[in-house]
Amino acid sequence: MAQNLTRKILAAHLAKSSDMIPGEEIYLRVDQTLTHDINAVMTYLAFEAIGIDRIGVEKAVSYLDHNLLYLDFKTPDDHIYLQSAAERFGVHVSHPGNGICHAVQVSRFGAPGKLSMGGDSHTPHGGAIGMLCIGVGGMDIATAMTGVPMRLKMPRVIKVNLTGELRPGVNSKEVIFEMLRRVTIKGGLGNVYEYVGPGAKTLEVSQRVTITNMGAEMGATTSIFPADEQVRKFMRSQGREDEFVEMLPDEGCEYDGEMEINLSELEPLIACPHQPDNVIPISEVEKKPVQQVFIGSCTNASYSDIAKAALVMQGHHVAENVSCTCAVSTKQIYRKLMEDGYAEMLLDAGVRFLEVACGPCCAIGQSPATKGVAVRTSNRNFKGRAGNPNAEIYLVSPESAAATAIVGTFATVEEVMGEDVKKLAEIKEPEMFKIDDSMIIRPLPLEEAKKVEIKRGPNIAPLPVPDAPEDHLEAKISLKTVDNISTDDITPASAEFSSMRSNIPLMSKYCYHRYDPEFSERAKSLGKSIIVGGENYGQGSSREHAAINPMYLGVKAVIAKSIARIHKGNLVNHGIIPMLFEDPADYDKIDQMDELEIENLREQIKTREVVIKDKDKNVTFKAKLDLSDSELEVILCGGQLRYLKHQLEEMRKEAK
Amino acid sequence: MAQNLTRKILAAHLAKSSDMIPGEEIYLRVDQTLTHDINAVMTYLAFEAIGIDRIGVEKAVSYLDHNLLYLDFKTPDDHIYLQSAAERFGVHVSHPGNGICHAVQVSRFGAPGKLSMGGDSHTPHGGAIGMLCIGVGGMDIATAMTGVPMRLKMPRVIKVNLTGELRPGVNSKEVIFEMLRRVTIKGGLGNVYEYVGPGAKTLEVSQRVTITNMGAEMGATTSIFPADEQVRKFMRSQGREDEFVEMLPDEGCEYDGEMEINLSELEPLIACPHQPDNVIPISEVEKKPVQQVFIGSCTNASYSDIAKAALVMQGHHVAENVSCTCAVSTKQIYRKLMEDGYAEMLLDAGVRFLEVACGPCCAIGQSPATKGVAVRTSNRNFKGRAGNPNAEIYLVSPESAAATAIVGTFATVEEVMGEDVKKLAEIKEPEMFKIDDSMIIRPLPLEEAKKVEIKRGPNIAPLPVPDAPEDHLEAKISLKTVDNISTDDITPASAEFSSMRSNIPLMSKYCYHRYDPEFSERAKSLGKSIIVGGENYGQGSSREHAAINPMYLGVKAVIAKSIARIHKGNLVNHGIIPMLFEDPADYDKIDQMDELEIENLREQIKTREVVIKDKDKNVTFKAKLDLSDSELEVILCGGQLRYLKHQLEEMRKEAK
Repeated sequence: MAQNLTRKILAAHLAKSSDMIPGEEIYLRVDQTLTHDINAVMTYLAFEAIGIDRIGVEKAVSYLDHNLLYLDFKTPDDHIYLQSAAERFGVHVSHPGNGICHAVQVSRFGAPGKLSMGGDSHTPHGGAIGMLCIGVGGMDIATAMTGVPMRLKMPRVIKVNLTGELRPGVNSKEVIFEMLRRVTIKGGLGNVYEYVGPGAKTLEVSQRVTITNMGAEMGATTSIFPADEQVRKFMRSQGREDEFVEMLPDEGCEYDGEMEINLSELEPLIACPHQPDNVIPISEVEKKPVQQVFIGSCTNASYSDIAKAALVMQGHHVAENVSCTCAVSTKQIYRKLMEDGYAEMLLDAGVRFLEVACGPCCAIGQSPATKGVAVRTSNRNFKGRAGNPNAEIYLVSPESAAATAIVGTFATVEEVMGEDVKKLAEIKEPEMFKIDDSMIIRPLPLEEAKKVEIKRGPNIAPLPVPDAPEDHLEAKISLKTVDNISTDDITPASAEFSSMRSNIPLMSKYCYHRYDPEFSERAKSLGKSIIVGGENYGQGSSREHAAINPMYLGVKAVIAKSIARIHKGNLVNHGIIPMLFEDPADYDKIDQMDELEIENLREQIKTREVVIKDKDKNVTFKAKLDLSDSELEVILCGGQLRYLKHQLEEMRKEAK
Repeated sequence: MAQNLTRKILAAHLAKSSDMIPGEEIYLRVDQTLTHDINAVMTYLAFEAIGIDRIGVEKAVSYLDHNLLYLDFKTPDDHIYLQSAAERFGVHVSHPGNGICHAVQVSRFGAPGKLSMGGDSHTPHGGAIGMLCIGVGGMDIATAMTGVPMRLKMPRVIKVNLTGELRPGVNSKEVIFEMLRRVTIKGGLGNVYEYVGPGAKTLEVSQRVTITNMGAEMGATTSIFPADEQVRKFMRSQGREDEFVEMLPDEGCEYDGEMEINLSELEPLIACPHQPDNVIPISEVEKKPVQQVFIGSCTNASYSDIAKAALVMQGHHVAENVSCTCAVSTKQIYRKLMEDGYAEMLLDAGVRFLEVACGPCCAIGQSPATKGVAVRTSNRNFKGRAGNPNAEIYLVSPESAAATAIVGTFATVEEVMGEDVKKLAEIKEPEMFKIDDSMIIRPLPLEEAKKVEIKRGPNIAPLPVPDAPEDHLEAKISLKTVDNISTDDITPASAEFSSMRSNIPLMSKYCYHRYDPEFSERAKSLGKSIIVGGENYGQGSSREHAAINPMYLGVKAVIAKSIARIHKGNLVNHGIIPMLFEDPADYDKIDQMDELEIENLREQIKTREVVIKDKDKNVTFKAKLDLSDSELEVILCGGQLRYLKHQLEEMRKEAK
């Protein structure tokens, strides 16, 4: 039977046979995993707790790429821990300075047809080379690294038929903006977007990654492009043509839905504060003075992205009241940009080169001023994510960012280059990059690895492990939130908070810090409590601290109108019961600090329907548990770590 | 009469005729001033408070070059304030990314024979081109900018006769290390070091700056080289040969002291923790594993410094457990290093390029790990200055730093390059740099400037102004310190604290934070108090917050065995009375929290001798005030701001 590419890859990785019906749980063998330094300490602490000697996947890579500011001892200590843990368990390490995880992963490790899971929501980046890449929480990565099959809710596969061709000055960023405009930030839940058609063929891998990476903003499971001639060319430029395999959807295959975008019709777009789907044409945005422009991030800092920005800036200069920073995504690309003169072009235009890293995107530096207006090429503009909740972040392409930096307000390249905009079309990805993996540390042989001592600084606190749910739960609502709460709202990004992530007792003091600074104290003093959320609760970054910190503070359940996929997984993994209002109208009937009561909780969990009594309002309402059988088991065990240890013990017993 | 260079320049800038007897006060007209973004908000707040419309010096430059991490709104707000204040008062601005203040100042503004004052202790950097550059506190800079003559205690001028020539692999860093070894960190007080002789002629300006810059570590007033052919060559490479004037000491001139260093005899040296005079040969240092290497800083990040480090690294790679970062000192140099392929050489060796800025030197990023060992090319290794008091910082040259990064422990270039070390001698400064001042904002015409609105973010708190001293002082000793307390001990460096410097109420909470975390609370609760110090109190950075914060906390006097020059000036400026034990043995008789009593304080101040009673110990001891007449007046007024306003009023009255 003719199959689409997504189903083909999933079918090839099934650990238990399945009809792959959308919404049903499937079990998958994972080829590769990816972690990065903001989230990964928890992952490797969990892996240590599981108690096995070596990873059970083909390749696991630990990237030291986010937290590179080293404001005090905490992050350098984390990096030493991560490097020693990687050596102990057979994990590759990509050193600080080598590049942003997704960009290095696709260049140096990824290959068509592989299945990869990463502890970062932008893991789908790798979908650009016909690889199925799924972002999950840190505990999931610890699980995946053991080699046990991973559960996934079978996604719907949506065909996105691309026609036409991008005009010069229009970036593939515009494609994903157009998707976000149509689909919205929650419309992609449970979907894989498969980009095909004649327009897809015109897009280089460097352009595709912007689309697959930022597909995460729609809440999608992942996004993917076929492994076609563009991918072969890319793999060749990385000296890895031998790892190329053509992977295309079968002729006449079926999809669960279909969309169409004509690339030729796209114009420069901009995502306005404070959500990436708040998209309008740049021509329609109110012109405000801009103080900061950032060109970089995993999403939009390829060779041609930066080279194009440089060409836009050639002969111009960043406006007097603008600070324009640039962080190239990998050392490999930075080197090539130097070689080809584009780095000097940007310097001449007054651009500040930051370190090769993803920093500013999640407030690891370059926060905007009070009520500042900043323009960025990154993927998210959530309120406060850039480190200042009263600032406004706008998202654009690198070309538009360069034009904006010159003009001093939102601008398109045409306003700066006029007819010369055509020159941008001449910039293509290099035929060949310099191959240099000297900043990647390869795993030691098992016997040597076993002798490695794991190094722990004083900030690395033990991983808290939740208890199994009680039979009778009485708890107050410690927080009732609005819709679209992001994991940034729950656990703030920024260099300061990122460096606390290895220390849950410390970090949990800042849980919901920007949204409700009193939450942490309140939840702690209640002992146990419940959070009530709106639609799309827990969207955004895969940050599992958004589950661990509330768990540490005694949160036993989240009842929301809907819960973002990765966050729901994190809640389950860390022993918080994710519940959905059966009738969303019930949300309005209950208030913060009401006391809720659930009788026979463990029995009710098994039925996936829970009756909840609000003792203050004297009303009763129902919540559903949209969980698979195994997720139910995890919840009843008290989280993934207890469940996995139990599972591995069973496997060991069977093996005897 | 034959004169040395220092006296010549001083004589040409005398505002009142003087015999220029060492130790006596002279008054000087200042040509140029320099401020940077960590200290300058206070300076411009003071300038605003003075109430004049335009600076009264030839050229004042405000550098935005230290605090570039932008961890939250505070620093971007500070930068907006500084840029608008500069525009208001006719000050040049050097934008973030243009380079470190001293390096840009010497390249783009400095000229032989000029007198410059800078709000940074490493201002003497510019002495490399035959300019007299003196580091002072921020309030002094505010004063200097008005154009009123500046008082200075006439220094002794010490001739340093350099003979021989540096061997390849030996950097001018070794010259200043040798000076520090001999003179120590307090031995330079009251001295100007004038470097002459055949060895001096062999040193390029890029090598001289390392010596003049780090002369600050000896406590010297400044250091200077003649404006000779090397300076002409340097000015030519900056497109400014027209500003070159030959400035040499007269044949047969006299000095107040003399030293000699044979450059040919120097070998690679290292300054061990925790003082820059703790100098030994690298060959004798105990080999420890090094985790971090930093190549950069104002002191040692010239074109040839970085190019030499690159050449050492060519064909090698940074060791697996080492993180090696590099921050070039100016955009101009970074560009040239890219052009000549050295930047790529460093990238290939696994070096991480940080932004062009002085960051890590004062803990604005790249803090070492717990009990970490870090090697740096910067100028200071005070305990905690790099952001982690339990780490060890070693100082070396760029060549030795590169070798260390490769080997993984302290190493010299000979260990890495062997015979090839000769190749290092081929690296010279470029004949010509690309001239690009596009990141420098020039002053507006007066009438336009008057209309500029100064922009103040919420973190910019008003400048606290002290009261004049009371007649009868009774106060407890809130702190008794050891010797060599640095301004880093008093007000910690680091990105976190640096961003508080515009907000004294906030920052003073962290006064003596690392040395005695309870000091701030204690001093505040005492209402008024006195600090007792040992030798060389207040050494290191010119940071005037080391005076402002204690003043804000109620400290009325410091009684010490000796007080570093810049810090003493800051104490006077901010209304804290600096006193010296007449008999240093009295230091041992008194204890923290003893109550001291000084009767007729104002009258006693005028006699420069104060009788102090320790009421707890029932002992009486004497302290001297090593202050000039005008300093006495400042103290009696309650600090420089009150004094200066009074002075300007008098001048206005006279003018009528």
